[in-house]
Amino acid sequence: MIYADNAATTKMSKAAVDTMVTMMNEEWGNPSSLYSHGQNAKEVLEKAREDVAAVIGAQPGEILFTSGGSEADNQAIRSGAELGRKKGKMHIISSAFEHHAVLHTLEKLKKEGFEITLLAVHENGLIRPSEVEEAIRDDTCLVTIMYANNEIGTIQPIREIGAVCRKKNVLFHVDAVQAVGHIPVNVADDNIDMLSASAHKFHGPKGVGFLYAKKGILLTNLIEGGAQERGKRAGTENVPGIAAMAAALKEAAAGMQENAAHQTAMRDRLIAGIGEIPHSALNGDAVHRLPGNVNFCFEGIEGESLLLLLDDKGIQASSGSACTSGSLDPSHVLLAIGRVHDVAHGSLRLSIGEDITGEEVDYIIQSVKDVVGYLRSFSPIWRNLMEGKKAFIL
Amino acid sequence: MIYADNAATTKMSKAAVDTMVTMMNEEWGNPSSLYSHGQNAKEVLEKAREDVAAVIGAQPGEILFTSGGSEADNQAIRSGAELGRKKGKMHIISSAFEHHAVLHTLEKLKKEGFEITLLAVHENGLIRPSEVEEAIRDDTCLVTIMYANNEIGTIQPIREIGAVCRKKNVLFHVDAVQAVGHIPVNVADDNIDMLSASAHKFHGPKGVGFLYAKKGILLTNLIEGGAQERGKRAGTENVPGIAAMAAALKEAAAGMQENAAHQTAMRDRLIAGIGEIPHSALNGDAVHRLPGNVNFCFEGIEGESLLLLLDDKGIQASSGSACTSGSLDPSHVLLAIGRVHDVAHGSLRLSIGEDITGEEVDYIIQSVKDVVGYLRSFSPIWRNLMEGKKAFIL
Repeated sequence: MIYADNAATTKMSKAAVDTMVTMMNEEWGNPSSLYSHGQNAKEVLEKAREDVAAVIGAQPGEILFTSGGSEADNQAIRSGAELGRKKGKMHIISSAFEHHAVLHTLEKLKKEGFEITLLAVHENGLIRPSEVEEAIRDDTCLVTIMYANNEIGTIQPIREIGAVCRKKNVLFHVDAVQAVGHIPVNVADDNIDMLSASAHKFHGPKGVGFLYAKKGILLTNLIEGGAQERGKRAGTENVPGIAAMAAALKEAAAGMQENAAHQTAMRDRLIAGIGEIPHSALNGDAVHRLPGNVNFCFEGIEGESLLLLLDDKGIQASSGSACTSGSLDPSHVLLAIGRVHDVAHGSLRLSIGEDITGEEVDYIIQSVKDVVGYLRSFSPIWRNLMEGKKAFIL
Repeated sequence: MIYADNAATTKMSKAAVDTMVTMMNEEWGNPSSLYSHGQNAKEVLEKAREDVAAVIGAQPGEILFTSGGSEADNQAIRSGAELGRKKGKMHIISSAFEHHAVLHTLEKLKKEGFEITLLAVHENGLIRPSEVEEAIRDDTCLVTIMYANNEIGTIQPIREIGAVCRKKNVLFHVDAVQAVGHIPVNVADDNIDMLSASAHKFHGPKGVGFLYAKKGILLTNLIEGGAQERGKRAGTENVPGIAAMAAALKEAAAGMQENAAHQTAMRDRLIAGIGEIPHSALNGDAVHRLPGNVNFCFEGIEGESLLLLLDDKGIQASSGSACTSGSLDPSHVLLAIGRVHDVAHGSLRLSIGEDITGEEVDYIIQSVKDVVGYLRSFSPIWRNLMEGKKAFIL
């Protein structure tokens, strides 16, 4: 099996599993308890906070542990909005191809009276800092832009967008779920006020994530209750999961440079090979791109059939985001970069792991070529195209 | 070490740890993915839903997985409130000694214009169904009452309160975090519309819980995003944690009768032994009480010192809820049953496990006697009391 869907989820690293097991069997106390067993858990929790903070250039007190990236996104945006509401600033800027954890939260805020500007991401999937600056108004309370796109892997000019937000004195939230652990992210250098991350995207456990919020930003609670997490996120802390996340993140940070170099080489080999298929097109910028992300559209085929046939060949990939794979609608990300409905349906995302080999890459290339050819052999759209109908991808 | 703080958190069972490890190493796919590895995870997820539903007499489609009991409480109450708001019904009934996940959510709703009635819990910590009935008004949208209290272990007449709510056509939510896995809970028999539970209270993992919502109840999302959990709870499902929770719950349900009988015997032995201490009082009803819960007030001492000295003797216990142990305020639960401030400060909760032995119980009794005696030997309050000042506990 070649697992090429690391953007959906990753396998936990050995270090993360080992940490989890040790914690479950030994340090399972409640960190709010006063006795030694509880205080040991508290120490582990605070050490994890330091480790996580260090990787992204934050202070430990600026890290809030959550149940994952979606919760962190929701809490960050809700917090930015509530701070804005208090000042009568009810305008939020985002982009058209954010994750649904962002877009659906913004839709909810829209119903509450907020005005939302979704910036264009253009054909290459990149937001222009100048357009962020132009969009900022006197009543803008928040800019929320993802670090790297979960479908097409585009890496935004976050530092430049952050600089614009600082200049204009507007809060800047970054959904960095796909970036943290894979590319360098530093909240200080990148001018980020709030940032969301998810452990299972960097070989940590599912059900754990974190929210960075720069000191001084008053967060709004999503979950009310006990006094955990400085009173900003109630519920007994998932100490085993949090410690395992910290272990995975430290490991990812330590190996990042080497891993990224290898993945980038493998990625580019995949892009070159798959790009040989006629009427295919790479989605997203070729340069400002996550090391592990490959995303293509193929004219005349259905993404779902492509996935199932690749699965038969032992290749696990996806068509767009896993979060919406039950849906029949084409990817909002691909529509945002200008793909038409029919073409967006025929997309393939390969998100390769750190340990992928050249042989595996060549096998994937050949398999995709074979499967696309096979599917086109009985596709009416493809037949029409061959008979002279205009193609969308040339 | 004698761990007597199972109401704060429990050690994971071997079955739960084993399930977690298998899932982390093998079935770690994203259940939203179409390929086989993802679909295997999906099967595990849905099997866990069936198992959890079966234990509480629900249908699988009525179970929503959350990050824990606090999230489930928040979502249930928010949902009941929003359904009420749509009909112009903005009155909610609860009790004065609910968990903070309930009380703080209600405080938030109060700020939004809801009217909250907190029923008295009387000296024995029991709510009277007749008083629920009297409190229900034409504009009451929700009654939320905990199944068993986390501090004093009182088990409410949930079935009778549920019958009142059914008769009056008012939604009934039950925070069953301390009950599920310990005493029989059946949402159908008990007339429950929504119920919250937390895995780490019944030897499952931290960071996982569930919300039961009777078919037809429209839930409000706390976390917006992907289409997971029928679109009602976004975020990649924590399949390993959920599967481990189901394993723990099945085990707890299978052993419940035997465990409860043993714990009840041990509990009553503790109550009899500790009750010999002069100027001590059991908190909460002696009969309608969780099998594992013992909670005493001792006049003239500080709960925190008591805990630290018991910790030195290898006994891990608590004073009130773990969630608020950082706070200097006395327990709102003990105040609700009529304890005065000074006495509420001197409380001890022992929540014993299923495998506690008679020898351990006797050791706890002797240790508590020794420690209370020692602390009183230099307590000015105790000296005043001995010199004729009125005692609160006779």
